[in-house]
Amino acid sequence: MQAGKPILYSYFRSSCSWRVRIALALKGIDYETMPIHLTKDGGQQFSEEFQALNPMKQVPALKIDGVTIGQSLAIIEYLEETRPTPPLLPQDPKKRASVRMISDLIAAGIQPLQNLSVLKEVGQENQLPWAQKAIISGFDALERILQSTAGKYCVGDQVSMADLCLAPQVANAERFKVDLTPYPTISRINKTLLALEAFWVSHPCQQPDTPAELRA
Amino acid sequence: MQAGKPILYSYFRSSCSWRVRIALALKGIDYETMPIHLTKDGGQQFSEEFQALNPMKQVPALKIDGVTIGQSLAIIEYLEETRPTPPLLPQDPKKRASVRMISDLIAAGIQPLQNLSVLKEVGQENQLPWAQKAIISGFDALERILQSTAGKYCVGDQVSMADLCLAPQVANAERFKVDLTPYPTISRINKTLLALEAFWVSHPCQQPDTPAELRA
Repeated sequence: MQAGKPILYSYFRSSCSWRVRIALALKGIDYETMPIHLTKDGGQQFSEEFQALNPMKQVPALKIDGVTIGQSLAIIEYLEETRPTPPLLPQDPKKRASVRMISDLIAAGIQPLQNLSVLKEVGQENQLPWAQKAIISGFDALERILQSTAGKYCVGDQVSMADLCLAPQVANAERFKVDLTPYPTISRINKTLLALEAFWVSHPCQQPDTPAELRA
Repeated sequence: MQAGKPILYSYFRSSCSWRVRIALALKGIDYETMPIHLTKDGGQQFSEEFQALNPMKQVPALKIDGVTIGQSLAIIEYLEETRPTPPLLPQDPKKRASVRMISDLIAAGIQPLQNLSVLKEVGQENQLPWAQKAIISGFDALERILQSTAGKYCVGDQVSMADLCLAPQVANAERFKVDLTPYPTISRINKTLLALEAFWVSHPCQQPDTPAELRA
């Protein structure tokens, strides 16, 4: 059961998959990517085979140590507990709370409202304003919070789980043409993060399933 | 800064507030409730005073140990790290991953799609089907997952953070008239949970801000 490399079920553009790819890269965990295309074949996440693996019909899912874990933050916390170096959570409980609060703000407060399945529901012509509103509302709060927690990164000067959520969410904001001018702290941290190798090798523009025309 | 009881900014009906109230009750933490009415006065969470405390303009927020924490799961993880007895996470990392996966499924995958602010966006006549669809889609996955993780409770026979998410989400499902017949495991666990004192004292029907006509 323990044998073999971890397998990450991933979609190149999925911001939640990217969070986990960054964690794997930072912690130096060698893994295989199993691409799940979220729109091809009516959505490969809906296949019986994939549902048996992850009933949530979502990516990412990580097969590791004989189990399959879904939900990006649950995966990252598991990696943190079983492969603690380098740490993605600070030692101090109050700082850990800040990291988790920022992570949840993005993972529960922004991303779910602008993901593919919800945008399908709101209708083609409403998709852009709907996604923009969700992101702007979340970023207004995030910018204010970061002003009191951030150092070089979201919480102090160590990369944390919060940063793993931030960069992919900023990429979504850019995709949905959100004006980032009102968010200088978010923008500054994002730029610093994208210069790190772990954020770059995990980037949507260079995954095994990235279409040729989108590759960097 | 450390003096005084913790203050929970809460709304009786908020399922996310209820999660934290259960944690506080289980851990025997004495606290004061500061009610934030989510619809009165155009929503008290939008006041400048509350925004200064919680820029996310949401409940719950917990003022404790000299800091204010938002996001229910971040609050619960903080309580777990600073007041570990009784534990709300198992010892085994794989079981902890199951608890967090189920918690995130509800907290990021269901609740955000059927909360008050989103339902306002979808328009009066669409609210019920929209909320039902989000809950049914999530419960379909949850029922399947619980069939492999559950004992007496969501993960084995110990109450965990996952249960703190489950009972409030079932209450939302009932409020939105979701047929629970297809979810025997969810229903069984919920019934077992509601018999526990900590779930009962924290119940929406008996909070300081519960309107008289809704009190139990």
